[in-house]
Amino acid sequence: MNQNSDLNIVILGNGNVATHLSEALLNAGYSVLQLWKRNEILRDADLYFIAVSDDAIEDVSNLIPENKPLAHTSGSVELSRGGVFYPLQTFSKNVEVDWKDIPILIEPNDSPMLHEIAKNISNNVQVTTPEQRRQLHLSAVFACNFTNHLWTVSEELLTKKNLSFDLLKPLIYQTFLKIQNHSPKQVQTGPAIRNDLKTLEKHRKILDEKYLTIYDLLTQSIQNTHDSH
Amino acid sequence: MNQNSDLNIVILGNGNVATHLSEALLNAGYSVLQLWKRNEILRDADLYFIAVSDDAIEDVSNLIPENKPLAHTSGSVELSRGGVFYPLQTFSKNVEVDWKDIPILIEPNDSPMLHEIAKNISNNVQVTTPEQRRQLHLSAVFACNFTNHLWTVSEELLTKKNLSFDLLKPLIYQTFLKIQNHSPKQVQTGPAIRNDLKTLEKHRKILDEKYLTIYDLLTQSIQNTHDSH
Repeated sequence: MNQNSDLNIVILGNGNVATHLSEALLNAGYSVLQLWKRNEILRDADLYFIAVSDDAIEDVSNLIPENKPLAHTSGSVELSRGGVFYPLQTFSKNVEVDWKDIPILIEPNDSPMLHEIAKNISNNVQVTTPEQRRQLHLSAVFACNFTNHLWTVSEELLTKKNLSFDLLKPLIYQTFLKIQNHSPKQVQTGPAIRNDLKTLEKHRKILDEKYLTIYDLLTQSIQNTHDSH
Repeated sequence: MNQNSDLNIVILGNGNVATHLSEALLNAGYSVLQLWKRNEILRDADLYFIAVSDDAIEDVSNLIPENKPLAHTSGSVELSRGGVFYPLQTFSKNVEVDWKDIPILIEPNDSPMLHEIAKNISNNVQVTTPEQRRQLHLSAVFACNFTNHLWTVSEELLTKKNLSFDLLKPLIYQTFLKIQNHSPKQVQTGPAIRNDLKTLEKHRKILDEKYLTIYDLLTQSIQNTHDSH
């Protein structure tokens, strides 16, 4: 493990982001003076990372000495002072992640210290504007939170007919593989894009009201997206 | 390559399912007498697979000698005669698939020939009822077609702000990995399930009308699904 400059870092937070970030910083050779858990804040660090819940970021930032540089790790918060160091990944307790692959989004453009740190822990560092970061955060909701919910709906539908969600996993994997080398728009399949009215009608007939609206809206959206007119 | 019984099989169809199925059957040691491309149908085979588009299945079935067993490969069609041999996978030209992992759904329950064939090419064979097969097909639309569309929406949102969809891929991968060992319902994350009103409002403000309805509906659906009341 190499000693990476003489930066002394304090991480404010005790959740999954804070824990994983401290590990990454230590592995990159930085000194993490403190992983903060509501105890007193050390005042002589070179940089303070705020990795608490969005709602608490502003309050916590007020505890940091005014002359000290700070950065928060949130995808959606804007703070009047300091920078942003946003790792675009979901962190879970006890699940190792490979930081080299995690995109780290940096604001502002002119922060050499945040840049240096990001580049020492990831191969995928990008400078963003607040507007871009907001859009990324929003896109991640569509690409991850909403897709996970559709898997939840699938599982519910299958369970109702005594079928295992495992049956769909090979197909889900194939769907995921396809977007590694193609734009998702190019590899859309299914009855909506074929405008296969017979199948669409069969599906609508067996769907409960609560998922029928989702079915219709996403079918319509697929057709609008791929409409050549 | 072992010679697997003396079954002589004709596959009616010239698309991706027909091509991949013929390969799997040949690899398992069966004789594929004919891969049909609108030429005359051989009348002396032991089994006929119909792997044409849903709309054409009935017409094609009428070309098969009446005393001969047949099965179609569709997730949603019901035919008055014959069985179903439905491989739950998406097939693309020139993309190899590992048939051992592909779930094959068989109807009816009492077809030893279809069973034997399915078990010789896959480790994941399941007997279904027409109702179960319909539900699986519908679930696959939610789990694959609709998720792919949400990735398409994400890509569009990112492109609009000069960001690459690649930035989201590590996060999508992690989301996919999580459902390998957990029910998707257990690993739902994001502002909707947290009822994080500030973030939800920020997202709504920057969304175009055309995706706002999807955002609201899926947010609502997540909240309904996870409502403890």
